[in-house]
Amino acid sequence: MGRYRPTSPEELPKFAGVRTFMRMPHVRTLEDVNFVVVGIPFDDATTFRSGARFGPEGIRSISAMIRPWHPVHDIDVFEHLSGVDYGDVAVVPGDVEATCEKTARDFQAIAAAGVTSFAMGGDHSVTLGELRGLCAVHGPLALVHFDAHVDTSEGNYGRKYDHGTPFRRAAEEKLVETSRSIQIGIRGGRAGPEYYQQSRDMGYEVIAMHEFEQLGVAAVLERIHKRVGDMQCFITIDIDAVDPAYAPGTGTPEVGGFTSREILNLVRGLKGLNIKGGDVLEVIPAIDTGEITAYLAANLLYEMICLQALAHRGG
Amino acid sequence: MGRYRPTSPEELPKFAGVRTFMRMPHVRTLEDVNFVVVGIPFDDATTFRSGARFGPEGIRSISAMIRPWHPVHDIDVFEHLSGVDYGDVAVVPGDVEATCEKTARDFQAIAAAGVTSFAMGGDHSVTLGELRGLCAVHGPLALVHFDAHVDTSEGNYGRKYDHGTPFRRAAEEKLVETSRSIQIGIRGGRAGPEYYQQSRDMGYEVIAMHEFEQLGVAAVLERIHKRVGDMQCFITIDIDAVDPAYAPGTGTPEVGGFTSREILNLVRGLKGLNIKGGDVLEVIPAIDTGEITAYLAANLLYEMICLQALAHRGG
Amino acid sequence: MGRYRPTSPEELPKFAGVRTFMRMPHVRTLEDVNFVVVGIPFDDATTFRSGARFGPEGIRSISAMIRPWHPVHDIDVFEHLSGVDYGDVAVVPGDVEATCEKTARDFQAIAAAGVTSFAMGGDHSVTLGELRGLCAVHGPLALVHFDAHVDTSEGNYGRKYDHGTPFRRAAEEKLVETSRSIQIGIRGGRAGPEYYQQSRDMGYEVIAMHEFEQLGVAAVLERIHKRVGDMQCFITIDIDAVDPAYAPGTGTPEVGGFTSREILNLVRGLKGLNIKGGDVLEVIPAIDTGEITAYLAANLLYEMICLQALAHRGG
Amino acid sequence: MGRYRPTSPEELPKFAGVRTFMRMPHVRTLEDVNFVVVGIPFDDATTFRSGARFGPEGIRSISAMIRPWHPVHDIDVFEHLSGVDYGDVAVVPGDVEATCEKTARDFQAIAAAGVTSFAMGGDHSVTLGELRGLCAVHGPLALVHFDAHVDTSEGNYGRKYDHGTPFRRAAEEKLVETSRSIQIGIRGGRAGPEYYQQSRDMGYEVIAMHEFEQLGVAAVLERIHKRVGDMQCFITIDIDAVDPAYAPGTGTPEVGGFTSREILNLVRGLKGLNIKGGDVLEVIPAIDTGEITAYLAANLLYEMICLQALAHRGG
Amino acid sequence: MGRYRPTSPEELPKFAGVRTFMRMPHVRTLEDVNFVVVGIPFDDATTFRSGARFGPEGIRSISAMIRPWHPVHDIDVFEHLSGVDYGDVAVVPGDVEATCEKTARDFQAIAAAGVTSFAMGGDHSVTLGELRGLCAVHGPLALVHFDAHVDTSEGNYGRKYDHGTPFRRAAEEKLVETSRSIQIGIRGGRAGPEYYQQSRDMGYEVIAMHEFEQLGVAAVLERIHKRVGDMQCFITIDIDAVDPAYAPGTGTPEVGGFTSREILNLVRGLKGLNIKGGDVLEVIPAIDTGEITAYLAANLLYEMICLQALAHRGG
Amino acid sequence: MGRYRPTSPEELPKFAGVRTFMRMPHVRTLEDVNFVVVGIPFDDATTFRSGARFGPEGIRSISAMIRPWHPVHDIDVFEHLSGVDYGDVAVVPGDVEATCEKTARDFQAIAAAGVTSFAMGGDHSVTLGELRGLCAVHGPLALVHFDAHVDTSEGNYGRKYDHGTPFRRAAEEKLVETSRSIQIGIRGGRAGPEYYQQSRDMGYEVIAMHEFEQLGVAAVLERIHKRVGDMQCFITIDIDAVDPAYAPGTGTPEVGGFTSREILNLVRGLKGLNIKGGDVLEVIPAIDTGEITAYLAANLLYEMICLQALAHRGG
Repeated sequence: MGRYRPTSPEELPKFAGVRTFMRMPHVRTLEDVNFVVVGIPFDDATTFRSGARFGPEGIRSISAMIRPWHPVHDIDVFEHLSGVDYGDVAVVPGDVEATCEKTARDFQAIAAAGVTSFAMGGDHSVTLGELRGLCAVHGPLALVHFDAHVDTSEGNYGRKYDHGTPFRRAAEEKLVETSRSIQIGIRGGRAGPEYYQQSRDMGYEVIAMHEFEQLGVAAVLERIHKRVGDMQCFITIDIDAVDPAYAPGTGTPEVGGFTSREILNLVRGLKGLNIKGGDVLEVIPAIDTGEITAYLAANLLYEMICLQALAHRGG
Repeated sequence: MGRYRPTSPEELPKFAGVRTFMRMPHVRTLEDVNFVVVGIPFDDATTFRSGARFGPEGIRSISAMIRPWHPVHDIDVFEHLSGVDYGDVAVVPGDVEATCEKTARDFQAIAAAGVTSFAMGGDHSVTLGELRGLCAVHGPLALVHFDAHVDTSEGNYGRKYDHGTPFRRAAEEKLVETSRSIQIGIRGGRAGPEYYQQSRDMGYEVIAMHEFEQLGVAAVLERIHKRVGDMQCFITIDIDAVDPAYAPGTGTPEVGGFTSREILNLVRGLKGLNIKGGDVLEVIPAIDTGEITAYLAANLLYEMICLQALAHRGG
Repeated sequence: MGRYRPTSPEELPKFAGVRTFMRMPHVRTLEDVNFVVVGIPFDDATTFRSGARFGPEGIRSISAMIRPWHPVHDIDVFEHLSGVDYGDVAVVPGDVEATCEKTARDFQAIAAAGVTSFAMGGDHSVTLGELRGLCAVHGPLALVHFDAHVDTSEGNYGRKYDHGTPFRRAAEEKLVETSRSIQIGIRGGRAGPEYYQQSRDMGYEVIAMHEFEQLGVAAVLERIHKRVGDMQCFITIDIDAVDPAYAPGTGTPEVGGFTSREILNLVRGLKGLNIKGGDVLEVIPAIDTGEITAYLAANLLYEMICLQALAHRGG
Repeated sequence: MGRYRPTSPEELPKFAGVRTFMRMPHVRTLEDVNFVVVGIPFDDATTFRSGARFGPEGIRSISAMIRPWHPVHDIDVFEHLSGVDYGDVAVVPGDVEATCEKTARDFQAIAAAGVTSFAMGGDHSVTLGELRGLCAVHGPLALVHFDAHVDTSEGNYGRKYDHGTPFRRAAEEKLVETSRSIQIGIRGGRAGPEYYQQSRDMGYEVIAMHEFEQLGVAAVLERIHKRVGDMQCFITIDIDAVDPAYAPGTGTPEVGGFTSREILNLVRGLKGLNIKGGDVLEVIPAIDTGEITAYLAANLLYEMICLQALAHRGG
Repeated sequence: MGRYRPTSPEELPKFAGVRTFMRMPHVRTLEDVNFVVVGIPFDDATTFRSGARFGPEGIRSISAMIRPWHPVHDIDVFEHLSGVDYGDVAVVPGDVEATCEKTARDFQAIAAAGVTSFAMGGDHSVTLGELRGLCAVHGPLALVHFDAHVDTSEGNYGRKYDHGTPFRRAAEEKLVETSRSIQIGIRGGRAGPEYYQQSRDMGYEVIAMHEFEQLGVAAVLERIHKRVGDMQCFITIDIDAVDPAYAPGTGTPEVGGFTSREILNLVRGLKGLNIKGGDVLEVIPAIDTGEITAYLAANLLYEMICLQALAHRGG
Repeated sequence: MGRYRPTSPEELPKFAGVRTFMRMPHVRTLEDVNFVVVGIPFDDATTFRSGARFGPEGIRSISAMIRPWHPVHDIDVFEHLSGVDYGDVAVVPGDVEATCEKTARDFQAIAAAGVTSFAMGGDHSVTLGELRGLCAVHGPLALVHFDAHVDTSEGNYGRKYDHGTPFRRAAEEKLVETSRSIQIGIRGGRAGPEYYQQSRDMGYEVIAMHEFEQLGVAAVLERIHKRVGDMQCFITIDIDAVDPAYAPGTGTPEVGGFTSREILNLVRGLKGLNIKGGDVLEVIPAIDTGEITAYLAANLLYEMICLQALAHRGG
């Protein structure tokens, strides 16, 4: 049984108490901890709607409803793991590079302590900092990336770092091993075919949404497992991978996305991968409805945590 | 042709008039009536969000858009049935037991008059009162239960009666025949495997959501019909059985639920069952968007009413 | 390369600037133009919720996110076409007939100039004016109509022209060739079986939603292509064809509709038809959430424009 | 004690039951009735936002909170009066003239029965029908008109009847005696000085908002009483007379309006006038927040009803 | 300088971090603490809208914007006081009496430690528990009560304890000294004159809203100070004392309330009273807009804390 | 009569057409133009909520309701002035300095052409760019600044330029003559007394909100006129100067602000000043309700434009 585990509803109703992820203790420690959930409330690197700086707050709030035992995997997370809400990175508003640096420092410390990190964005620019931190400890990672966008642009408006460039930068910095990495769910009108091509040119495998529609969940999972193999990997989910009906609260929505069941099954199907961390990005509570976007995001983090618990049990 | 039927839009536009369910007359009579729709605006037995006390109002409001003839069943409800909006149970705010008792009294009277009841919640605690009332007249019922939660807990916070316990109490009180009853759509992180097991231990059949995903609508309908057979039954739908994308306005949403077409086809497929009553629960208008939750709830009640009309025509 | 094309995000961020459809120039010219997008902000012909007069504004606003190149068709619209935002028809509030006349005049001028028109409603009554304008130039058109409702009523409340009658009037006026026309997605409780029958009696083919559920996208597309053949046609999409989860912001929603992927694939599958114009109707921004309805509507217009681009490239 | 009076909360909680104004019985009778509250859900005569057709529903819903005894006047309405919710006028969507005629017929019948009418709009065009009905029985009326707009335009877009013209038409038809009538709260940018002048030319006294700010409540009340004297009168309140902070849910808001306390004190100060009827208009629930606009509107109707009760007690 | 003080924005931006009141440490200690802020998330004792159980969360969230130094009093709270966010009382959902008991126990412990408590509701029923706890240590208190309602009813629906009865129960239990207590802002239609009279009969002084309008802030403050004198007192603010324009997010709003500046000046004017605790109640985030209700509530608590700081500095 | 003036509602209803400020032509010219309205959609320099990048769109949208003639000043803007909507500055997302530079360049060009500029923010950081542009042509300006915050901080998080620093930078760069400048409406808890003092130390006159409450509108206007005299000046209004009840849609709201009538009268009272430009900032449409914040902002710009028209008429 893990040292740190959520407050039970019997002790305090789910709607009560200071909000932390899944009601885990908010302790800034890495001792006796297997995983941390961390917020990175930064949204000054977006190209359309801002507001994702409140993503961690929104996700924490509704995550109170999630319980430790997973019915499909039949596992209780906290029987195998000890986890805390590590709080938020001390982001620097308006300064993507300083924020990236601070993020890297925090995540390196976490990884160095042998703790797995699960992060709540924030816009997608924040993933670069996470990857820098993790790579400093673990070396390059395979990337499993669910998104409507490839996020491998050269840059926008002369900015090298924004929410459309992290996976170009990550490849350039050799934080990810693109030949073992894959992007799934890409779609929508773009500037031109070079949009998809740039990812492939960098070595990423890309499964566009219309390809996913043909392949289905099982075949795509096979492709992912084949691609990643046993390499240590990082899972990153831009919530806009999901259809706006299921995730209206986001900054650059794209029609025709995943359903909630598809994305849940995709993440569940990552069982067996060697996961070093993960994140869910681009939740904007101010334009969410009934907290459904935030709750789906919280559940996707929970699904990742379950994968870690399975690995612990298995291993 | 039934004595009581809705005001037609030709007489009064659909957006006009005092709101009653489907614009049926609001008459507190059981004479010349085949079915009633009743509200039970109680929400003091919830464990997360409150607000379902306004469920009946929200459902009534948007139900104005529903018309009597059903295109799949090819039947006009009011050619076969006479129906009224019976108003709301005089619930006792904050007192789940007194409310339950009042509900039971009303529903017993309705059932005793040979009238079928369709209820609008309220949180799921109110179903116990309905079942007590119906059972007093009809004896034990088979239960067809769509929900994200089993609602068979021992109790929460020392309360015997809340929205997580009605189907334990109903089984204990022998209001339902669990060996002929079935729960469909259950999912989500829970305290542990005992969550599902407690229902099975009480005799319920449980089809978890991930099992439904494998089986599909047709196979699940077969399981339901086999289970219930010709026993008199009660249909209860917690709107959170449906995915939050389709039903954001509810109190304890759970990701990965039914689509609207799945739940509609599941209810349509109950044709042939011997239905004594039904309800739709847990609609919270204050957090709904575009009344989509309330409208889906209203339609699910309408689908149940159509089943009764089919039985009348058939019988 | 077309003369008129959108402002690129590099020039001006997507969230900046006066809103026009897809950020195309707002020029009231037909010279050097292949297609126009036009708003028809009229909503005084509705039978339930009003508010679609703000539809064009809502669609324009979020359409800023759409880019010219389509990943499935692999085509850049503006390499083949020149397009402008033609602004709105000078509708006459409260006067459906005067508005229809003004609409007809504008669309006749557009068609006469050899320009294809794509319109943003407004309620569905506005399509009649479009059809009058187009028919005056092109002669009768085949109709490909996605909707929850047939819109072929005799009239409501003594009004000959409202959002429930355009396709009866269009047939009576011989603007559409019903024997080459088809309606898809029809569903929901109605006054009686005559509701569907009236369309069929006028010569329309009708694929109800429950029939679509059996057939699937591919088979339905085959039916459409067979029906329309090479006749010149008009595509009209009432956004309520789509499920309220995907399109909450509309006036007469109907549960159990298309998913976003289905409707997108249906429109993409119209490739090869001889399209003279199209429209998307009944978007009400005031009750939308996260602009998801408006964005889906904008994308459906974009999909139609892509079909025209494909035809240009092909032809 | 009146025959018809509201359901008490003891009998049924305020949040329960089919919604009627102040929970009065919904009975379409004029016998043993002193006053009726009637909805006129028409909004096809507006020049900006539509949606006021749902005004009566919104006002009814929240009016459940109002109780019979008034603390300032120290009077219990239903000790002196019998009142019912008469339901809605069977408006004709899209047809302002037919709706006006139907309204006139209903209100003439009400007035002829010696019953006072209080109406819930709808847009301001509906007042003309009310005045026609009342004038047919009582002869011309003095008008006490609170509004941001004079509503005495010649017409807009060639329409003689819309929400900007009722008080020109009423004057032309000699339904109101303009020399005894007064308009208060007028403000906002207009086409030109003729906007205010047209009202004065027709004989109305006009107190612009900036004049009210100088005069204050007491002096304005004096002006009203002096103007109206003992002539029979009609009170009409466009909710946009109030500042958007207090009444966001309306169609043509204007900044710098009355506070809630000012408008309440203005209506309370009409005590002693010979009131034959009144209405509150232009509430749009879809853009309201927390029902504050609808609740203020409901209270303004209640204040008018209290004035009638005072007159009964006094007389 | 107090031991516990808020995280500064320089350390962590105001929009970042786990939400606590004013970003004070969330520590469940009473050592080296002068005041605590505590949430009491209970709303099962309401008579209209539920949802105040999320009040503490909403207040905490936006309270991040409040800084320690007060410009009118010219005092920095944390130069004089050490304060923590004590978390929430472990309320018992649906059980007002058990919750009251738990609340009393917690607040007695706080008071016994010489710590001042400031509570965030929750509906107004929770104040009784606070008063029981405080009275057990301090003896009876004078009450300064801002509210639209007297909350001195005998009971509703047979319940002795709900949000309309706390100050009757408190008087009966001699927790408050009514002869030194005062209620301000009372208004709105009620069942009858006994509504106000019952408070006066119990010994409370009552200043109705219409009396406040005549008297103004300064005179009312004089009345309060005269009434309370130097007796130890408790300040309770039902947010519905404020006008719905300023506080839309509440359960039983009443038109014609205080402006934000009036209520702020009223609380500031309590300087010099011997304050033992206070609370702000009835905030419902789900129906708030732009968090304005929650932010006003947070500021009112801050104003109370400033009064304590002034007393410390003074004393 | 000016060359450029708004589209009249007779030509096109107010709810129709591509949205420009007050429906003026969107022309990027400075010829035959007296004033321009310009958007600066930048919000990456905020310290709490982001979202003001959509401010210009929100203000344009609802500004359609404003008409040219002002009832208090009795002047028709466009009889004296020619005005256009100049579109938006091509801001650089995430780069406050580049945006500032671009803004300065645009505004210098505008000023050099003898055209007066009125800008729509964007967060308050954008004013620095405006001032740089204007000062390059006109030399230093007196500042009339309405705000809840002084915005004269040294910097936050190491950033020299954000929405809390523009008036320190402006003073340092000698863009404003602080001895002729004044800040009004400042309030709210701050880090310490140095918050107010820093402004005074730089030479600004500061009228805190609690001082305004004592002084009233007339006396404050006298102070402003005395301070500014006949120096050329710039008016800058942070919408959070206004109370959240009147302006909920903003990023750093502060309770206890101006009412709409106060701020309108304050701006009207600036008549006679030698105004070279002005702006309204910090409108966030995503958290507005009923567009009331955007509409008040639009009206404040209109009031400034009226002042210019008065000056033209006068001069």
